[in-house]
Amino acid sequence: MRTYYCGEVKKEHIGETVTLCGWVDRRRDHGGVIFLDLRDRSGIVQIVSDPQRTPDSYQDAEALRNEYVVKITGRVTARPEDSLNPKLPTGEVEVYADQIELLNSLSKQLPFQVSTSDTSEIREELRLKYRYLDLRRDRMSRNLQLRHQVVKAIRRYLEDEQGFIEVETPVLTRSTPEGARDYLVPSRVNPGEWYALPQSPQLFKQLLMVSGFDRYYQIARCFRDEDLRADRQPEFTQLDMEMSFMSQEELLQLNEELVCYIFKTVQGIELPRPFPRLTYAEAMGRYGSDKPDTRFGLELVDVSDLLKDSGFKVFSGAVAAGGIVKVLPIPGGNELISNVRIKTGGDLFKEAIEAGAKGVAYIRVRDDGEIDTIGAIKDNLTEAQKQELLERTGAKPGHLLLFGAGSADIVNKTLDRLRGAIGRELGLIDPDKINLLWVTDFPMFEWNEGEKRLEALHHPFTAPHPDDLGDLKTARAQAYDLVYNGFEVGGGSLRIYQQDIQQQVFEAIGLSPEEALNKFGFLLEAFEYGAPPHGGIAYGLDRLVMLMAKEESIRDVIAFPKTQQASCLLTDAPAGVDAKQLKELQVASTYKPKT
Amino acid sequence: MRTYYCGEVKKEHIGETVTLCGWVDRRRDHGGVIFLDLRDRSGIVQIVSDPQRTPDSYQDAEALRNEYVVKITGRVTARPEDSLNPKLPTGEVEVYADQIELLNSLSKQLPFQVSTSDTSEIREELRLKYRYLDLRRDRMSRNLQLRHQVVKAIRRYLEDEQGFIEVETPVLTRSTPEGARDYLVPSRVNPGEWYALPQSPQLFKQLLMVSGFDRYYQIARCFRDEDLRADRQPEFTQLDMEMSFMSQEELLQLNEELVCYIFKTVQGIELPRPFPRLTYAEAMGRYGSDKPDTRFGLELVDVSDLLKDSGFKVFSGAVAAGGIVKVLPIPGGNELISNVRIKTGGDLFKEAIEAGAKGVAYIRVRDDGEIDTIGAIKDNLTEAQKQELLERTGAKPGHLLLFGAGSADIVNKTLDRLRGAIGRELGLIDPDKINLLWVTDFPMFEWNEGEKRLEALHHPFTAPHPDDLGDLKTARAQAYDLVYNGFEVGGGSLRIYQQDIQQQVFEAIGLSPEEALNKFGFLLEAFEYGAPPHGGIAYGLDRLVMLMAKEESIRDVIAFPKTQQASCLLTDAPAGVDAKQLKELQVASTYKPKT
Repeated sequence: MRTYYCGEVKKEHIGETVTLCGWVDRRRDHGGVIFLDLRDRSGIVQIVSDPQRTPDSYQDAEALRNEYVVKITGRVTARPEDSLNPKLPTGEVEVYADQIELLNSLSKQLPFQVSTSDTSEIREELRLKYRYLDLRRDRMSRNLQLRHQVVKAIRRYLEDEQGFIEVETPVLTRSTPEGARDYLVPSRVNPGEWYALPQSPQLFKQLLMVSGFDRYYQIARCFRDEDLRADRQPEFTQLDMEMSFMSQEELLQLNEELVCYIFKTVQGIELPRPFPRLTYAEAMGRYGSDKPDTRFGLELVDVSDLLKDSGFKVFSGAVAAGGIVKVLPIPGGNELISNVRIKTGGDLFKEAIEAGAKGVAYIRVRDDGEIDTIGAIKDNLTEAQKQELLERTGAKPGHLLLFGAGSADIVNKTLDRLRGAIGRELGLIDPDKINLLWVTDFPMFEWNEGEKRLEALHHPFTAPHPDDLGDLKTARAQAYDLVYNGFEVGGGSLRIYQQDIQQQVFEAIGLSPEEALNKFGFLLEAFEYGAPPHGGIAYGLDRLVMLMAKEESIRDVIAFPKTQQASCLLTDAPAGVDAKQLKELQVASTYKPKT
Repeated sequence: MRTYYCGEVKKEHIGETVTLCGWVDRRRDHGGVIFLDLRDRSGIVQIVSDPQRTPDSYQDAEALRNEYVVKITGRVTARPEDSLNPKLPTGEVEVYADQIELLNSLSKQLPFQVSTSDTSEIREELRLKYRYLDLRRDRMSRNLQLRHQVVKAIRRYLEDEQGFIEVETPVLTRSTPEGARDYLVPSRVNPGEWYALPQSPQLFKQLLMVSGFDRYYQIARCFRDEDLRADRQPEFTQLDMEMSFMSQEELLQLNEELVCYIFKTVQGIELPRPFPRLTYAEAMGRYGSDKPDTRFGLELVDVSDLLKDSGFKVFSGAVAAGGIVKVLPIPGGNELISNVRIKTGGDLFKEAIEAGAKGVAYIRVRDDGEIDTIGAIKDNLTEAQKQELLERTGAKPGHLLLFGAGSADIVNKTLDRLRGAIGRELGLIDPDKINLLWVTDFPMFEWNEGEKRLEALHHPFTAPHPDDLGDLKTARAQAYDLVYNGFEVGGGSLRIYQQDIQQQVFEAIGLSPEEALNKFGFLLEAFEYGAPPHGGIAYGLDRLVMLMAKEESIRDVIAFPKTQQASCLLTDAPAGVDAKQLKELQVASTYKPKT
């Protein structure tokens, strides 16, 4: 129907008669001559309709409005010197329209402007309801193109460079016994029974290793029925990988190469290698987080040993109860952050409360090197303690030291939040920086206080560190996360493939052989037929693309996302269904709306 | 962990020390020397453990059994002249094992042999229950590799040659008002409401055209809750495409190129182009089917006009009632097919009954050119009619003519079945032949006898043929199917993008504007904001790969398929779930098992 895309028309086509199709991005009437910006997915080109030079098209051009769909035939002409547009790839030419065919018009008023020239912020509900118009806009069009390019790069690298094979795993599968977050699907053919949508292809990809596929990947849709927090979606996309006969080191190297390939191919960015690595213990120690944003400093300092005998009971009591005391030192913080913000009701105080702390202690280092804090702290610090405190935290005049004291968990959570908030406030975070790092050596287990037992931090197939087999309860796992500017974008582990070690892990988390069989029966059985050493990783594709696009929500890199209430404003899903449908499925809703 | 894959070890590595990982495909003890076939996904290499030359590995080799997982280090050696194996890519070498590390053994007896050397047929239930072992076998491993290669070729062609962009559309979406075949998913966050799993991304891909994506594709998982016939799966995979600003001819050309690219890249086969085309009317006329297998002849001949006044009331009555009389002429059929098989209770009679016919009439052409049939037919044929019948059907001595008489629908269905059965029986079908053809010009509507109204043959957005706008009720559609050896592997249409034509189509199928809005509201609304001319196609990927693999069931090209009872024998999905889960979802099963 056309000879070129709009964005392809260049100087070398001058003199040629071309046919173009697209949308009227903008129409301007300049003293009797009509200029159209014609847009398709490749870009924009300027069309001219001049009653003198192109009388046949002029009436048609006059009738056009923004977003009308047209097919235009005309001659490519050099723009006059004074109307060259260096910002536009097609800015050296314009097309004199001999024929304009109106393919479609609008019968409704646009709910918002979609023109490339419009960059105004639009309410998200409106964008989601008219997603097809939102996707016409430059921002979303670019984001989905980026997403496509990222997936393409992934496939090229894994298939061509590394011999991975893509295998599709089922979407209609079985609920795991702890599957509280599973979406369920009633089976009509097997009434009373349910499928579950997978939270990940974990079991299937391990089975594929037992089958000898050796290197598997999949761009896999996954599902999780969560109370939707900040930026989650009921369905999300994962780059899922699993490999046999590889050490953790080989696996991390391959994944670094993959990530570098993506950035290089898609954005032309050479990432420095090797990626930095932090053990879980180091990351928690220095940043209070297992996914630290290392684009800025403000590292934490553990001073538990120094203050464990302090007369200030908040400090010594915390340590005595098995907790810790940690400091977030903020250069220049003395001037920038007032007491009001730290004390009850202040914004930083609130951050701390939300993280589970009772409050934040502080010490200010004055210009003369003296410290300024509440009496209870000051009076209980010996001079030697004070000096060591300043030295260890690198505190100089003008520093503000914020203290967390209590359980390690809450202290870290608190100081991590404060570190982030203050880093942003002080402009310490360069938005153009791309910091990727591995966090390794996660603990095998965490304590479930509710059930008074250990539970697997990742899943119970995660392999323990070979040096830690002596005492599994405190063992490190061969597990790793890839962290990108403070977001976990990937995570995985080597898996247990030996039955004796698997048995020990089940024992550690208090799972009897019968329970284990009931939960993971077919996988455990598969492992009896010759499982190879294997491991894998999964990336959150939505989040990776979001960060690469410098967006703040994964909704902005998903074509048709759902709201935080898990609904689609475009199609109105979920919705009521015909009683007939439910009857045929032999299910019923038990929900009684409050009247 | 390894230096090569097993299948990579070749003559050029002789003298090199290599490390290989994999499974013991076979272990043979030849007079004190142990030979192992070591297998990984790349193939097999022969390992030798000789108590003289490799004493360190001998004991370990003795302990090995089939399917044990090992890591072997050894020296690549030329095989002695008399043990070269030209059938094996690695057949010129063997590896003398210096070290054998047992990575994993078996703790259960294999339910069936998985060795490459074993080609026995295994019961499908057993294969599906132990799918991870079935996937180790050569056949399934090759099929999934083929599937991967097909998808890879599709992506390469569409992305690199044609500028398509892949966009992921939702899996949790909204039930269509006629969505009797939808799988439903209860929403916990929105109790009483349900998502539906998509039968295809049809609406979303049309929305993407409204958004200007211009060329979209997706390898999309689709879902259909059918009573599972012959070879259907509850979830299946579609290559889904949609394009803007293209004519039907351009679209068909692009798709021919795609299909040729797949066959060339994956199997090295050059398909002849252009693909033959049949209109729907031609296909039904000549083959009684809209997806004819054109690898063999046995074309049908319509003789309604000739026999409409026949004294044999079965013929004339059929025509008088608006039906037809058609002949399936079978060269040599007189000798090959006995009357017993055609008459009540015979196998061909049964085929006809299953197609809805009441029986089959026949005429035999004897060696002397005389005809042989029941009196009622013979007595009612004039000599001229007889001659014309023989001439039109090309009947020669030895021919058998099978007659269908009745409604066109049933006659075609009957003769199509008989044609297939006899074609197979007579060995007329070359299994190595690849016949691809387009069937075009489908009718817009078919008559729904139950509801006494027309309904859309494809869907109500299918564009009518521009020549047929005068009378939509009998119009042809701009719709097309791709047929591969008698299977429909792809199908699509140009879509309606103009509101007035859409309105006429809704009228033709008796859909009021209100009903239309209720059914397709958001798509119709989207079309008010400037929809481009567009069209698309969807391929059944499972079926395409099945045919390319020369398999007879799509289950053999799906990693983890479900049975015809829609259940997974490996994971036991679907299954009962925790009462707690259902309570939280506020749903219940209303199924009462019979006690």
